[in-house]
Order: sequence, then structure tokens, then C-alpha cells
Amino acid sequence: MSHLLRTRPATTDAMLAVFDDNATLRHALAFEEKLARAEAAEGLIGAADADAIASLCDSIDIDPAALAAEAALAGTLAIPLVARLRKALPETAAKALHKGATSQDVADVVLVRQIREGHTLLAADLARIATALAILARRHGATPAIGRTLLQDALPIGFGLRIAHWQAGIAAATERLGREVEAGAILQFGGAAGTRAGLADKGAGVAARLAAALGLPDAAPWQARRGGMAGIASALAIVIGTLGKMARDVSLLAQNSVGEAREPAVPGRGGSSAMAHKRNPTGCQIALSAALRAPGLVAGVLAGLPAEEERGLGGWQAEGPALAELLLLAAGAAEAMATVAEGLDIDEAAIARNLAAAALGSDIGESEALVETLLPAPRG
Amino acid sequence: MSHLLRTRPATTDAMLAVFDDNATLRHALAFEEKLARAEAAEGLIGAADADAIASLCDSIDIDPAALAAEAALAGTLAIPLVARLRKALPETAAKALHKGATSQDVADVVLVRQIREGHTLLAADLARIATALAILARRHGATPAIGRTLLQDALPIGFGLRIAHWQAGIAAATERLGREVEAGAILQFGGAAGTRAGLADKGAGVAARLAAALGLPDAAPWQARRGGMAGIASALAIVIGTLGKMARDVSLLAQNSVGEAREPAVPGRGGSSAMAHKRNPTGCQIALSAALRAPGLVAGVLAGLPAEEERGLGGWQAEGPALAELLLLAAGAAEAMATVAEGLDIDEAAIARNLAAAALGSDIGESEALVETLLPAPRG
Amino acid sequence: MSHLLRTRPATTDAMLAVFDDNATLRHALAFEEKLARAEAAEGLIGAADADAIASLCDSIDIDPAALAAEAALAGTLAIPLVARLRKALPETAAKALHKGATSQDVADVVLVRQIREGHTLLAADLARIATALAILARRHGATPAIGRTLLQDALPIGFGLRIAHWQAGIAAATERLGREVEAGAILQFGGAAGTRAGLADKGAGVAARLAAALGLPDAAPWQARRGGMAGIASALAIVIGTLGKMARDVSLLAQNSVGEAREPAVPGRGGSSAMAHKRNPTGCQIALSAALRAPGLVAGVLAGLPAEEERGLGGWQAEGPALAELLLLAAGAAEAMATVAEGLDIDEAAIARNLAAAALGSDIGESEALVETLLPAPRG
Amino acid sequence: MSHLLRTRPATTDAMLAVFDDNATLRHALAFEEKLARAEAAEGLIGAADADAIASLCDSIDIDPAALAAEAALAGTLAIPLVARLRKALPETAAKALHKGATSQDVADVVLVRQIREGHTLLAADLARIATALAILARRHGATPAIGRTLLQDALPIGFGLRIAHWQAGIAAATERLGREVEAGAILQFGGAAGTRAGLADKGAGVAARLAAALGLPDAAPWQARRGGMAGIASALAIVIGTLGKMARDVSLLAQNSVGEAREPAVPGRGGSSAMAHKRNPTGCQIALSAALRAPGLVAGVLAGLPAEEERGLGGWQAEGPALAELLLLAAGAAEAMATVAEGLDIDEAAIARNLAAAALGSDIGESEALVETLLPAPRG
Repeated sequence: MSHLLRTRPATTDAMLAVFDDNATLRHALAFEEKLARAEAAEGLIGAADADAIASLCDSIDIDPAALAAEAALAGTLAIPLVARLRKALPETAAKALHKGATSQDVADVVLVRQIREGHTLLAADLARIATALAILARRHGATPAIGRTLLQDALPIGFGLRIAHWQAGIAAATERLGREVEAGAILQFGGAAGTRAGLADKGAGVAARLAAALGLPDAAPWQARRGGMAGIASALAIVIGTLGKMARDVSLLAQNSVGEAREPAVPGRGGSSAMAHKRNPTGCQIALSAALRAPGLVAGVLAGLPAEEERGLGGWQAEGPALAELLLLAAGAAEAMATVAEGLDIDEAAIARNLAAAALGSDIGESEALVETLLPAPRG
Repeated sequence: MSHLLRTRPATTDAMLAVFDDNATLRHALAFEEKLARAEAAEGLIGAADADAIASLCDSIDIDPAALAAEAALAGTLAIPLVARLRKALPETAAKALHKGATSQDVADVVLVRQIREGHTLLAADLARIATALAILARRHGATPAIGRTLLQDALPIGFGLRIAHWQAGIAAATERLGREVEAGAILQFGGAAGTRAGLADKGAGVAARLAAALGLPDAAPWQARRGGMAGIASALAIVIGTLGKMARDVSLLAQNSVGEAREPAVPGRGGSSAMAHKRNPTGCQIALSAALRAPGLVAGVLAGLPAEEERGLGGWQAEGPALAELLLLAAGAAEAMATVAEGLDIDEAAIARNLAAAALGSDIGESEALVETLLPAPRG
Repeated sequence: MSHLLRTRPATTDAMLAVFDDNATLRHALAFEEKLARAEAAEGLIGAADADAIASLCDSIDIDPAALAAEAALAGTLAIPLVARLRKALPETAAKALHKGATSQDVADVVLVRQIREGHTLLAADLARIATALAILARRHGATPAIGRTLLQDALPIGFGLRIAHWQAGIAAATERLGREVEAGAILQFGGAAGTRAGLADKGAGVAARLAAALGLPDAAPWQARRGGMAGIASALAIVIGTLGKMARDVSLLAQNSVGEAREPAVPGRGGSSAMAHKRNPTGCQIALSAALRAPGLVAGVLAGLPAEEERGLGGWQAEGPALAELLLLAAGAAEAMATVAEGLDIDEAAIARNLAAAALGSDIGESEALVETLLPAPRG
Repeated sequence: MSHLLRTRPATTDAMLAVFDDNATLRHALAFEEKLARAEAAEGLIGAADADAIASLCDSIDIDPAALAAEAALAGTLAIPLVARLRKALPETAAKALHKGATSQDVADVVLVRQIREGHTLLAADLARIATALAILARRHGATPAIGRTLLQDALPIGFGLRIAHWQAGIAAATERLGREVEAGAILQFGGAAGTRAGLADKGAGVAARLAAALGLPDAAPWQARRGGMAGIASALAIVIGTLGKMARDVSLLAQNSVGEAREPAVPGRGGSSAMAHKRNPTGCQIALSAALRAPGLVAGVLAGLPAEEERGLGGWQAEGPALAELLLLAAGAAEAMATVAEGLDIDEAAIARNLAAAALGSDIGESEALVETLLPAPRG
């Protein structure tokens, strides 16, 4: 079964691949393998058992659809996965596998690794936008244009000031997201009740090794303390909202009766099945649609914060899909707006015509200085 | 690419199949085929052209992944689909194809047909719940049990009264959903600007035939009037919430220190990867997780209601994924709670023990009469 | 303390009065009075005690601020209210007061009566809109105007068709709201654990009398079965969303470069503190702002559906404020859009000019017939 | 009109006072006064005019209800406020008033000052919680207790570890909130179109002086760039959610059949209007109710991010009420949980009894070390 016709239009192939079943499996197997290695290094299991586990995790072939059906029944992926691995291992290695770990450790580690991979992809498109918008903002910083407030002509602005605001909003959101990912996408390793029991007081040592091997910051377990996930979710939605802000403005500027800016012409994009004359703001549509969907996804994550005792019932299980969806939407919106930013088709004549029609002069106040305040200094 | 490890645990295979790419394609092709037939019947296109279109729609083989990538670029599925069909048709049939229709007509018809199919599936599991809970409520209607308010022992109730409330809540939500689906999942056929232009004043006739052929109620176009979709979304979330209410109670009753009721033992369900002794309320987890995710999905649909003029930018594009997700979550929750309802393991001794411990007597007031008020009269 | 500068701009004085402290107190006292009367009629308490209670409820003077502080501590209004009343009553009447009732019975009855009063107010403004829009839609049904999809010129429509869609959307939402209020704003009377214990099997009789006296439909208790409240909340948000749809379009049409329609000039409305030349779409602002706030309020109500056992902890307490807020927002939006509908300033010359500029002809298809389909038949 | 019976139970008097009409007016008048002083210092208006403005702002008596009605009509508070002030000023001072400013400058400055005041109040209660929980966590760090996952007995934990998690969650959320307030609650001063026009290139100087006088960080205007507000809203909701986490656990522990911890007995709190024997977790109710309402409020703020051009229509107007509500809810939840934290009634015998009943041993793993990892180091 595939659902690409429903999911793909809102995102990118690359971000879909981050959350693909094979990627999920790869992360889950990496957890078991690196855990075994870490526990062997701490003398908790035998080195040969760790080798056997690592070798199996590298080579085992699992049908994601079958595993998904079992996971649906079990309530979590790790249960059927660990059962399959154990069946394929010699007895001592089977016992050594997953030692001191629990299902949520696997689920959370898979999720935070996907968040980090997704964040790297997203950051690249956000950087494209930053570069393109900074150039446009400076290029058009002194161009008088009519400013509009409450959808009415207000007073003139420098056309580039509007663009600088897009960029400043996206940049601040990008920075928040980076901070939240760094703080929240961290190792989860706590075991059955979050105490790291059964590890002969070497739990902290195992955790440190496991974190290093997985490329994650080490951390105390957080299985029912989900503020970090909520922080990432919120930060993603704010990124999406700032992309939506740019999209809103571009779509308003592209109206036929305004015509000050348009999305670039991209083959295959923006046509109409009924009207050959149309050039639709399809990139903006992606970002605006994402900006409508993201807030509710955040609300779902926030609503799950009051988790029950040592592991919640329902809350954290709702988080993973929401975070995945937010990353998918952010990727779609960022890629779309990167293309728009790099090719934005600005019509200076239309800008001048609309300014003249407003008959409100051309004093753009301190627009140019504000552009420089809003943008990062150009690199020397 | 597949994403079953992320999506499957929250839903059912049957509901995933409703939204599968091949199902989506089938509905889209049915739209084009039935439209051609309707237009031929009204004399707007030739019968031979309609035959050619119908034959192609029946037989064409399309790679969903490739089409999805094109749809992502185009902003809508219909554009690349119609282009492919036209390429494969003789010239007059190519011109006759999709006559008077627009992309959103296709998208909305696909969506409402999937909603109706999904609703049928869902209704079956809701009916299972109704049957099972009515039996349980009556069986335990006179069993004194401690009632709890604000999570504290309050006064005795008939144990079956609690169950009757679950059922009354689910039943009312089921009825609302049926009404909203009937009113809102209707034909959309408006053409480029929603005026049914280009059809020689036979648009209403085409619509009537098309509706009949697609098994949908006939209706005026509603491309930017989305209250019906919002009604369906809300109704789905309320169904999910009422399933969550039952799940909340079962999970509380199943606490080790309460023990009044437990989910049935199902092979492969409710175990722990770390603790062999556990019997987790995994069915409840599915419903509670759905109940956390659904409200935000509804919020997203509601936020899109202020659509722009004749076809919104971003709003309705956000609706389809949300409605699909709501149906997927509702299916998962209903199937899980049907299994729970049919096998609920009620421990009368524990009920009696907890009642005695509360030392608040055993006057259950009018519980039994209220059970009958809340339940539908038994048949026959 | 007052918070009118924060709340009043989004609503009307009349709706604020529905939720005013004195109104809340009046409803709560009415509950106690009518309950005593009903219980006296059923022989459960003495007639003289009922008289004493009724007389006190009619005459007692309570400082809402002091009571609110006590209610904040107690967790519910009824506890300090009943305590005050008991202190002022002779001993037998004090014992007779609130017999068989509980705090949530009071809270829910207050809420449903405020919902019904609020709904009546709201319905009046929605009816004003219906009347005004039907006239406008028919008057401009045959006026060719450019239709716009995805914020781009598409094909011509009858200008009145757009207006007819506003009205059809609002009308369907109005109808849904009426149905949900009728079904959900009903008597709540269950007592401590919802069993109507302590009433000598006359609970149903008391309930029937109480419902009649309070002007509410009789019903089984629903203290932890909140789907009806969720239905009302959703229906209110959909009403608000359809008002937002009209507001979105009017604000787009009122852009200086479009100029096809504007809000009526109302003294004191739509000015700017900085720009004397502006005529801001301030009515639209109210409706659009409401449409942004409503979805999240609904999400909060939906999230509370999985209430714990016989009375939830946190969920239903979150509902009242959300429903009040939704009614306040709906009132503000409906009043604003009623004023807009009744005075909408349509510029036929601008419509013609924009149509000509689009150069897409003037075929409005079946617009006029669709207007009649969308509108209710005019009264004979 | 007052609405305390609806609002007060969820919050504190002190936070209500922050958003009281008189406080709002005081902040708005401070803006006009400090602006005049700043502009006089920059030589843009006369010193005598600034004196007249300052004197009037200090002394003018305005009826908030009347002003609120005018603001409702005007769409913003500043328009009628500035009109009243101008009427009371000599002509040159009237002209000097509000020079270069616009309504949203006033509204945003009022809001950010209220956010800062509210944040200070909130931080004090969060600090009380931190102190109390750290003590409890260490005191009970080595007490073996049954840990519970998915609401089922899992394995033993140190009872203090659960408390340390509450504290670590609240502390991280507190820190995020501080960061977001510092970054986002900043000066807004941009004038009609955000260009600081009409200030003879001294806008930046005026802004710097104004910021200093108002006790706010100086900043470029952000009237349509609202990510900072969204960051504050999200951070508030996460604080509320972490308080809700603590409340969830306390309410579960306080169940009669568990009895491991209870809210402190507070006179007037937690009773029942129907059952004298009850001790309800009313503080937890406040926090859990807040945790249900907060996510939707955040969703509303996020949904407004795609603001239109230089000043949005509807979006930022929806923000102020949401942020106020979030602070009100956070205050109520924090005050309630501070009281709970400071008086939490822990029953060691019940803890031991439940642990024994689970028969899962008493190995609490590395609980004690984790407590120290989660808590800040005690002050030397």
C-alpha cells in the first residue's frame, strides 16, 4: 500500500525518505546494535553476543508491512522486532539483546534520529531562502512601493523592507528550531520504568556510549517528560508560519490587479486543468496549506504533555506522527518557498503604477536602514 | 516508499486501503469516465468519445509514485492525470475529456467517495460496539460499584450505568456522523469558476447524471463553501472522543489497584518488551492516542473555512489529508474498542471489594432505570 | 476588575451580558429555586421549605467578586453558593436545599441556559444576514464579474453567485447550530454520582418538573458524556468560519486595486490612528479574527471528551469558558457581518472594469440558476 | 459588567489585575507619554507639548467601558483613546501627540508590557514549585515505590525520581519561557506602514529612547512578523503542560485505591456540594483544565502567522486575547501546583503497601543518581 497521492504534494521526496519504513527499521536496528556494543564495552554482555547481534542487525531482512501489522497489535514496534531478532539469535545473544531497554527507548531514539536528519534537510532549504531573500531585500530596499495594512493602501515603504521582514521572521524561526532540536532530540534510554535497573549500576556508562554511537547528546531518560518534543513541534510550526507569511504576501502581490510579484515560471507548476491562461501561485499554496495544518498538529502534541506517571497512555504515541507530519510539511513549504525566493519575478513597473495610483507620495521613511537592521550583515 | 510503521499502528488495514493510491486513482478515473458518459447522454460530447474515455479509464495503468511527483509540482492531481489521459486518447476524445470540469471537482469527488467508503467501514465497528456494550450494560446494570468523580470515590452506581453512558455517547456521535456524511459528502461539479460554464446550459443535467453514476447526492457546487467538510471532520472527532471516553475508563478500571475491568487477552497485544508480567491496555492506548490527535486535525479544517473567493489558496488543500487522517484514526479507535467491548473482562469480586472499601453503602439510586433510558430499546 | 478593553472589541454588549456575573448568579439561583419547587411537588421536601428557598433565591444579594474568589478555591461555584444560602436559611430549609443535586448539575444548567440565551441573540443577527444577502445575491445575480480562484483571475461569474455562496454557507451552519443546541443544551440533573440517589425513586419526576420549570428539554444525566457540548462548540465554530468566509471575500474585494465592494461607512468604524484617508474593513477584521480563534477553542473542548468515569477532572471545567468564548466571538462576528451585509457598498463600475481587464469574456454560465438553487425560495 | 465567576476559578487575582482595564489604559497612556518625551528629546516636538501630553496622560480619567465600546467600533483601542486625548489638549500638543505612531504600536506595547508583568508573577510561583519539589525529590529519592507505565504496575522506582521529573520538566519549560519573553516582548514602534516615516530620520533615536523609558528592549518594528509572539505562546503552553503532568500524577496517586500522595488540605478547597467525605484534587483540576485549554490557544496564535503585508487583518488582533488567556491559565495552574508542591501529603505506608502488592521486588536501579542529574545542584 502507498499513500503518495495524498502525502507527496505537501512535501518532498527527501523528507518522505527520512520517515520511510526502511529508514525507521534501520534506526531501530541501530539502537539494538549500538546498545549491545555499549553493554559489551561495559562488561554487561559478552563481546561475542554483541557481535552476533550487530551482525544480525546489519543483515536481517524484514518485511515492513508484516512488522507494521504486528506492531499495530502489540502497541509498539519494538515488541515484534525484538521477538524476531531473538528468534534468529543463539540463546545467549538472544538474552543479551535489548538488555535493560524498553520499547519506548527504541521508539524515541528512532524519532529523535529522524528529527535530526529531517532538520538537516530542512535547514538547507531555509538557508537557500535566506540567501535569496537577502539579495532581493537589498536590491529593492530603496524602491518606493505602496505599503498595505489591513489589506488597504497605507503609506509607501521600500519594497525590499517587506522582503527583509520575511527573511527576519524565517531566520528567527530557524534559529529557534535549531536550539530546540539540539536541546530536545537527545538520547532516551531508561528501561522498563526509567530507572536503568538491571545494569549493575553501569546504566550511565551504557547511556554515554550509546549516545556517542548514535550521534546524540547524552541525557537522563525523559520518557514521560515531553516538553522537549513540544518545543520542537512548536518551533517547526513557527517556521512553517513564517514561510506562510511570505507565501501570503507573494500570493497577494501576484493578484492580477496588483501584479507586483509572481512566482517564477516552473515547467509543470501552477497550471490549471481548466484554464490555460492561468499561472497559479502553487508554491504559495503549499506553504499556506502547511500553515493551516501545522497549528493543530502542535495542539495535539501539547495536549499530550500531562502524561501518566512513568510512561503515558496515548500521549507520546500521538507525538511521533505529529512530529513526522510537521517535518514533512515544513520540508514541502521550505522547498516551495526556496524556489519562489530564488526566482521571484518582481515587476518594478507595476510597483510604480500602484504607488502612483495610491497618490500617497513616495516617502519610504527609514526603510533602507531597517532593511539593514533586519538582515544579517553581508559577509566580508 | 511506504510509511506503514508510522501509520498502521493507529488504524486498520481496511481503512488504509480506502485511501491507498490505487483507490484514489480509481475514484479519479471514475470521475472522468462518468462525466464523459453524462455529457454524452446530454449530447455535449460524442458517444464514441465517451466510449474511448471510459475504455481508457478502465484499462490505463498509471504509476502512482510518478503521478504523485507530478501532482506535487502541479499543485493538484487532476492536471497530470488529465494530461496523461489526453495523450492516450484520439484527438476528439482528448478534447471531450474533462469537459467543463476543473481539478477541484476531481479532488472533491475523490474525497467524498473515500469519506463514504470509510464511513461504511467505521459504522460497522461502531455497530459492534453498540451491540456489545448494550449487553454488558444490562448485565451489570444492578451490580453496585463505587462511582468515582474527579478521580475520587463518590457514591455507588450500578456498574452497567457507566457502560450505558459509554454507549449513549458513542451512539449519539455515530448518529451525528451519519447525518453529516449524508449532508456533506455530496457531488462537487462546478468547473473552472463554479458556474458550470461551457456546457450549453446543460450543467444541471450533467450534474444530476454524474451524481447518480457516482452514487452521490446531487448538489450545487461548493468548492469554496466548506462547512460540510468541517461538519464531517467535527463529527469524526466527536466519535473518536467518545471512544476515548470508554478507553479512559477501561484504562482506569484496569489499574492494578482497581482491577474492576480489563481488556481481553488478545495474542500479540498488550505485552511489554521489558516486562513479561504486564498486560497493557493497548486497545485503550490506540483510542486515547486518537483522541489526542483528532482535535487538532479538526482545528485545521475549521481554520480553512474562510476560503478566498471562488476557490481558496491553501484551505481546501489542507482538508483532504485531515479528513483522511480522522477516518484512519477513527477506524483504529473503533476497531480497538470493538475488540475491548466484545471481550471486556469484568471482575465482579474486585468491584465488590472496592465498593466495600469505600464504605459508602450500596444505594445505586435509579441506575437501572437510567440504563434503560440511555440504551435503545431491545429489538423484538 | 473589568476586562472590557480586551473582550469587548471581539463581541457585543448583549452577548457579554449573557455571561455577566449577575446573569450567572441568576441562573444558579434559579436552579436551586426550581429544584426545591420540583422536589416539594414530588413530596420530597416540605412546601414551606421550598417557599423559603425560593424567597431567598429571589432576594439574596451576593457580591460576585467575593463568590468568585471562593469558587476559585472550592473548584466550583455551587459549593460556596450553597453554603451561603444554607447559612441564610432556617435549618429544615437549609437541609432541603440542593437535595440530591451536585455542583456540576448547577454548573451545567447555568451553562446550557446561557447557551440558549446566547443562541437566541446570535440567531437574530444571522437572520439579518440571511435577509440582506439574499437580496444582494438576486440583485447582482446576472452581473458579470471576474471569478477568482487561487487568488488569480479565472473565468466570469455572476457577482451574486459569490454572495449566494456566502449565504448558503451561513444558512447551513445556522441550521446545524440550531440542531446541536436543541439536542445538547438540555437538563443536567444527576446528583453526586449521576444516579439520582437519595430521591426515593422520584428522581425522574423531579427531573421532568425541573426541566419544564427551567425551560429545558428533560434528559438523562450527562455529566461525563460531553458529546453534546462538543457538537455545539463545533457548530459555533463552523458558523464563525462561514462568517469569516464572507469577511475574507469582502476584504479582498475592498482592496484598493480591486474596489468591487466595501464595507458600509459607519461613523467611528474603520479609521486609522495614523492615516486619515483609510477606510479599513474593520467588520471583516472582527469576523476573521474570530475565525482564527474559534478552531482552537473547539480543539480544547474535543480534547476533554475522554472524561474520567462519573465526572472528569479538568475536562468539563475547560468547556464552559470555551463555549462562552465561542458564543462571544460568534456574536461579534455575526453583528459585524450583519452590518456589512446590510450596507455592502458594491461598485458595478469597478466590477465591469476588472472583468474587462481580465479579457476572459462575460459568459457567467449557469450562475443565475445556481443562485436560486443556493438561496431559500422567496416567501410568497 | 464583570465575568469573574467564569474567569477567576482558572486564575489568580494578581494575574487578572495585570490585564485589568485600568492596567491596560495605564500602559497605553504610558506609551503616548514616553513617546512624546522621546520625540521632544530628539527635537521632533516641543518640550512644552511633551509636558502637556505627559501631564494629561498622568491625570486623565477615562471610563473603560465607554472606551471599550468605541474601541469595538473603531477596531482598535488607540483610535478613540488618541481622539479623547487630542480633544483635551491645546492645538500644538494635540498635533504632537502620537506623532509617527500607529494603533498597533500602542496595542503591541501594551501587550508586551503585560506579558512582562505577567511573566514576573508567574516566575515567582514557578520558583516556589522548584524549591518545594527539589526538597521532596531528594527526601524521597531512595524510597522504593512501584513505577507505573501505561497505567499498569511496571517495576520499582525511587518515589523521588517521579518528583524530580516533574521538576525537571517545569524547570526546562520555565527557562524556555524566560528566553522567549526576553526575545519577543520587545518594543514595537513603526508608524503607519512600519517605516518610521515622518520623523526626520530620527526614528531609530526615538525608538531607542522609547524602549528605555518603557523598560523594553529596543527593536526594529515587527508588526506583521509575529514569530516572537508565537514563541511566547508556545512556551506558555509548555509550562502549563508540565504543570499538568505533575497534576496528572498527583491526581492518579490520590485515587482512593492508590493513596500514595494527596493535595494538602486547604480550608475551602476540594470539598463537594453533595459529599462531605470527599477531598477532591482541586488544585490538579485547575492545572489539568488549563492544560486542556492551552493547546488550542496556541493553535490560534500559530494560525495567525501568515499575516497580510504590512499589518494583518484578523491575525494579530487574535493574538492579544490568546496570550492574555495563556498567562491567566498559567498563573492559575502555577499557583495551584505551588500550593500542592509545598504541602504534598505523601503516605509512605501506602507507597510500601502498593509496592508489596505488586510483588516486583524493590530494585530502584539508578533512581537516586538520576534524581541528582535531573535537579539543579543544591546551593552551597
